[in-house]
Amino acid sequence: MTGETDPAAHGLWPLERPARGASALLSGLRLTTKDVFDLAGLPTGAGNPDWLRTHPSADEDALVVRQLEHAGAVHVGRTVSDELAFSLNGENMHYGTPRNPRAPGRIPGGSSSGAASSVAAGLADIGLGTDTSGSIRVPASYCGLFGIRPTHGLVSVRGVVPLAPEFDTVGWLTRDARALAQVGEVLLPPAGPEKLTDLVLLTDAFDCADPRAQKALAPALALISREFRSVASKTLASEGLDRWAGIYRIVQSAAVWETHGAWYRRTNPRIHPNIAERIEFASAISVEQVNDMRAQARLIRESIRSQVYEGRVLCLPTTPSIAPHIGAADQRTRQRLLALTCIAGLGGLPQITAPAGDIENCPFGLSLIGPPGSDRALLSLTARLWR
Amino acid sequence: MTGETDPAAHGLWPLERPARGASALLSGLRLTTKDVFDLAGLPTGAGNPDWLRTHPSADEDALVVRQLEHAGAVHVGRTVSDELAFSLNGENMHYGTPRNPRAPGRIPGGSSSGAASSVAAGLADIGLGTDTSGSIRVPASYCGLFGIRPTHGLVSVRGVVPLAPEFDTVGWLTRDARALAQVGEVLLPPAGPEKLTDLVLLTDAFDCADPRAQKALAPALALISREFRSVASKTLASEGLDRWAGIYRIVQSAAVWETHGAWYRRTNPRIHPNIAERIEFASAISVEQVNDMRAQARLIRESIRSQVYEGRVLCLPTTPSIAPHIGAADQRTRQRLLALTCIAGLGGLPQITAPAGDIENCPFGLSLIGPPGSDRALLSLTARLWR
Repeated sequence: MTGETDPAAHGLWPLERPARGASALLSGLRLTTKDVFDLAGLPTGAGNPDWLRTHPSADEDALVVRQLEHAGAVHVGRTVSDELAFSLNGENMHYGTPRNPRAPGRIPGGSSSGAASSVAAGLADIGLGTDTSGSIRVPASYCGLFGIRPTHGLVSVRGVVPLAPEFDTVGWLTRDARALAQVGEVLLPPAGPEKLTDLVLLTDAFDCADPRAQKALAPALALISREFRSVASKTLASEGLDRWAGIYRIVQSAAVWETHGAWYRRTNPRIHPNIAERIEFASAISVEQVNDMRAQARLIRESIRSQVYEGRVLCLPTTPSIAPHIGAADQRTRQRLLALTCIAGLGGLPQITAPAGDIENCPFGLSLIGPPGSDRALLSLTARLWR
Repeated sequence: MTGETDPAAHGLWPLERPARGASALLSGLRLTTKDVFDLAGLPTGAGNPDWLRTHPSADEDALVVRQLEHAGAVHVGRTVSDELAFSLNGENMHYGTPRNPRAPGRIPGGSSSGAASSVAAGLADIGLGTDTSGSIRVPASYCGLFGIRPTHGLVSVRGVVPLAPEFDTVGWLTRDARALAQVGEVLLPPAGPEKLTDLVLLTDAFDCADPRAQKALAPALALISREFRSVASKTLASEGLDRWAGIYRIVQSAAVWETHGAWYRRTNPRIHPNIAERIEFASAISVEQVNDMRAQARLIRESIRSQVYEGRVLCLPTTPSIAPHIGAADQRTRQRLLALTCIAGLGGLPQITAPAGDIENCPFGLSLIGPPGSDRALLSLTARLWR
């Protein structure tokens, strides 16, 4: 054909797309997505019925949801989130507390609570969540799962309800290290090979943990240490991790108010009193205070980043201990968690947690933090260590 | 059901996805994609058979291709590109020169040549392409189409063969302003309302055009001027647009060498002599020279950006005239084009071209340049002006 609309004459090669189906990277893996990811045609709830009520249906899916579906994942459901994702417990007074299948009677951890619970129960293989202050890492640790908080900014947050954008990340939870890495191949940008060869145990982070946790982690630590060229111990925060957590808390809270303050005042939502209290605390932070704290946070960021370079990996307990009993987590629990989770948060660094110990037959995790952008290398390393 | 794996007890709401199909934003629109966008399972050719031969099949689709397919576009084919996208003519010595249906015997313009040709011929409704130095704007002007070069950095280049990353953008071509805006709703981030109220005619840009072009554009100019609150004329580049184009040329060439120099030396590809000459020119630029030129380019960027603020829109001819006859475009043609196309390139600004005049029955375009991030407002404005 050489007529007026001959495709070849107009620079057009008709396309034979290779079949996707069984060859797709995530083919057959079941996906659940936290109630903060937009799904076209539905309103997103962010764990709170007044949020749901005051927001329109989404026009399009969150970009990462599309990416995962395109790679063959079977999207089986949406999962419960803590309200506004502003909690680490996984207790939702409106929709109930998702069960922790690995630690009955205890909280699942949050805010990606349903994501963790559904994967731990075997109802899904990939739980897509978000992690600002630990919302992937904490439920992963409590539910005996693998979880990743990627380098800040590396995975798209388009179509995701924000909490504190300067710390918000999209992460995911799986039951095994292989699936964790498979999802990374879809969501993370390609990266050159990076060797992670030197392990640094963070003494001050281990000091934050339950003494029983240290003992429970010892066998896993011994095993993984053998895979590194060198193993060293050091104190990360000379001012103390509690001080860092305090700075993190102010900066994050101010960002939460900047993000949600107007909606909160306008809507006066039904919300758990502990979360309401944190939001009121956030509203009272002065501009001077947050500027000062942001400046300190920047210095801490540089300090942390100077510790991870050329193949160095930081190692720490993910949480101080196993999941608290339902209803028992309090402000002190949150502070102790933040002393560990604020490190990757302030540093903007990728952190992977893997199940590594048991106390009273309940799991908790050990974490590795790598240099910025080393996410794929960290995933490969984890798959090798937890084969 | 309240058993061990009751979804509700594990924070999981099974999902009923609303049907897409006919309700999707781009439902029924046929899409072609330039041979620089990755398509999973196929190698990407970048218009050159030796590039095709020396690169593996893509693991995944370019992100924008996914976004468009997800929004309901029917992907009907891949289209011819100029080699490495490093030309504005649309002549490809390996795969032939796509026809210009609106100007027979003349070049279609490039490097998004097949994208423009296929849309102008009615074989597709959306031609996805890229624009570094004018590769959307020039073929749009020559083929009588609408085309947009978005704000630099706003649309993802993931999975797209780069040319000069500091200037590379993903853009698209359509036969009408409505479809141009519809694609923007899928690919551009949401943006608040922005009023574009004041038109500035760039005297020095109009002076670059064929005197017949100025006359041919007059009726369109008179018509659109009425829609603005104010209309003014001014000279943009006191040093001269030729000088700006010269600076652009050095910086862009250096970036091309940084991007493709190693491949070029290693492969010694069969490539059009004019493109080879430009690559050799690029290889000879010294570090001192490019640093100096990059510093000047930054100053020009600030200067351009200071001209587009608070609702101001710059207006200029897209190309100096209609498409040259096949084989007639030379180095001088390119220099004259760059004097006009370098403005949005150096400024990182969004530019939309629309068919606005005819000479010898062949079309060419008029362009609007808006403030950074005003892409959606510029698309709405264009749809209103070219109703």
